[in-house]
Amino acid sequence: MKKLINAVDTVLSESLAGFVRAHADIVTLGDEGKFVRRRFPVRGKVALISGGGSGHEPLHAGFVGHGMLDAACPGQVFTSPTPDQMLAAAETVDGGAGVLYIVKNYEGDVMNFEMAAEMASGPVARILTDDDVAVESSTWSTGRRGVAGTMVVEKIVGAAAEAGYDLDACKALGDRVNQATRSMGVALTSCTVPAAGKPTFTLGENEMEMGVGIHGEPGRRRVPLTPAAEIAAEMIGAIVHDFGDFAGSDVLLLVNGFGGTPAMELYLMFDNAARMLDKHGLRVARSAVGNYVTSLDMAGCSLTVTKLDTETARLWDARVHTAALRWGM
Amino acid sequence: MKKLINAVDTVLSESLAGFVRAHADIVTLGDEGKFVRRRFPVRGKVALISGGGSGHEPLHAGFVGHGMLDAACPGQVFTSPTPDQMLAAAETVDGGAGVLYIVKNYEGDVMNFEMAAEMASGPVARILTDDDVAVESSTWSTGRRGVAGTMVVEKIVGAAAEAGYDLDACKALGDRVNQATRSMGVALTSCTVPAAGKPTFTLGENEMEMGVGIHGEPGRRRVPLTPAAEIAAEMIGAIVHDFGDFAGSDVLLLVNGFGGTPAMELYLMFDNAARMLDKHGLRVARSAVGNYVTSLDMAGCSLTVTKLDTETARLWDARVHTAALRWGM
Repeated sequence: MKKLINAVDTVLSESLAGFVRAHADIVTLGDEGKFVRRRFPVRGKVALISGGGSGHEPLHAGFVGHGMLDAACPGQVFTSPTPDQMLAAAETVDGGAGVLYIVKNYEGDVMNFEMAAEMASGPVARILTDDDVAVESSTWSTGRRGVAGTMVVEKIVGAAAEAGYDLDACKALGDRVNQATRSMGVALTSCTVPAAGKPTFTLGENEMEMGVGIHGEPGRRRVPLTPAAEIAAEMIGAIVHDFGDFAGSDVLLLVNGFGGTPAMELYLMFDNAARMLDKHGLRVARSAVGNYVTSLDMAGCSLTVTKLDTETARLWDARVHTAALRWGM
Repeated sequence: MKKLINAVDTVLSESLAGFVRAHADIVTLGDEGKFVRRRFPVRGKVALISGGGSGHEPLHAGFVGHGMLDAACPGQVFTSPTPDQMLAAAETVDGGAGVLYIVKNYEGDVMNFEMAAEMASGPVARILTDDDVAVESSTWSTGRRGVAGTMVVEKIVGAAAEAGYDLDACKALGDRVNQATRSMGVALTSCTVPAAGKPTFTLGENEMEMGVGIHGEPGRRRVPLTPAAEIAAEMIGAIVHDFGDFAGSDVLLLVNGFGGTPAMELYLMFDNAARMLDKHGLRVARSAVGNYVTSLDMAGCSLTVTKLDTETARLWDARVHTAALRWGM
């Protein structure tokens, strides 16, 4: 294992220390390093909290800031955060309008966020993201996995909370965005978890894992590597099929790198995926390309498509100012 | 070779097509795809043009936009753009106040930008970046290599041009920022150039290349991998030694990923490097962490330190709106 680290058991704490120091104008570390929160809390708005295992950066801490999350609870690499982290974050950032947890559909995350919600003193709601069309259930999830579409949910609901939507409205909007979002991924290499010290899985010289999960969990099938156009066609095909007919819709296309794939390839995949959407009669009205929901150093990418309406497009465009996502002046 | 591509000879054109489509609000492609330019040109300001071999994305096209570059000329992967690309870009974006080329110090780039400058009809100046302290001359350069510090020069001079500095003032500022900037890199793996189809170099199971160049050129020495704190100490030590005494200065610390290294490791390196600067009595007044000047899929990172003064800090903070760098509201 070759990594820029000092020791396996200090990777998370040192990385968080660097993160909050590099972005001290936006974020600060919560008590005992249990969570990352906005440096300047806002009272009177719904507090958005997310979290999950580390190794998917910038998700979630990179999305804490104006127009997106109020706090993020990082677990150890690919390990759920604990209920006391989530509770501590909620108690700190609750601005009096309730707390909304955004949870990716993995068993550990779901269970721990539920425990935190039960212990909470104020009103709490939850959005569960499950945008991955690759498999119906998986190693770590009952039902579909929550993957890169989670970023889209966090952005749109974050803008709504900032604009004064109440807890019920934020929750309903988040469920609606999740239902309008589909993703699928492909891996060309495995990732290596620091504590494991070796690759999570192995792929042959010329193989790819089609439908891979963001922890390197198996997808649909392991097949020989094909040209980018065929990969894009299969992933967009699966997404469009799963949506059913929605020709004529405006969509957001997100090409998400898993951490080890160069920008050149991500933009090339964007070109190929967007042309597939053109063929299906969909209009790419918004786009994002980059490493947003990663799997440590895994090579590969995922495609996410979100059907947009006037409201969600406006909220996507709204000002956001976080470490990893910034626009709107 | 495992890459998300269709064919080796269409990597650049498909990637550029995806880039300008994904960021159509900011950029557009010049005639015959020779360059990427701002979608909304500005008259009356100095036009900033950069360029170089592809494979370092987001440098340079990702830095085209308000407050930074006016155009970028991408060559094939790790291959200089041609003089006619540079000339075509200059003729298109020249807003009547002259053209300033920002050139990384590699022989091909220097020669081709010189030829373009000779053919130009209007006033042209050039800033040569050579911030890499690792080696004095290298495979592709006479004198030091221009690496991640180039991004800092482009940002600060870009803000100056936007603020109305004339050609001479922009040129003088750029030279000053370059002289106030030092970088050094380390590679844990090689990169793989699509046309070559195999890794540029090979590193043993437990080796790193200390002082590596952004094309995978050799650095100072190949040594066993050490903990991140030692790597940071060596790189910051080399940079500080090269500057001579500058205790008490405000500095910008840029931790730049080469493309294949996860954000967790980059932030961990930021933490370690910033603590080294603390020890040397320098104040980290500004920071940036991310993949800015990459080497395709190479794992590793570089550290860049720029001494700031009131003027350069203000220009660093000024509004920028490009595909890859955005702040200031």
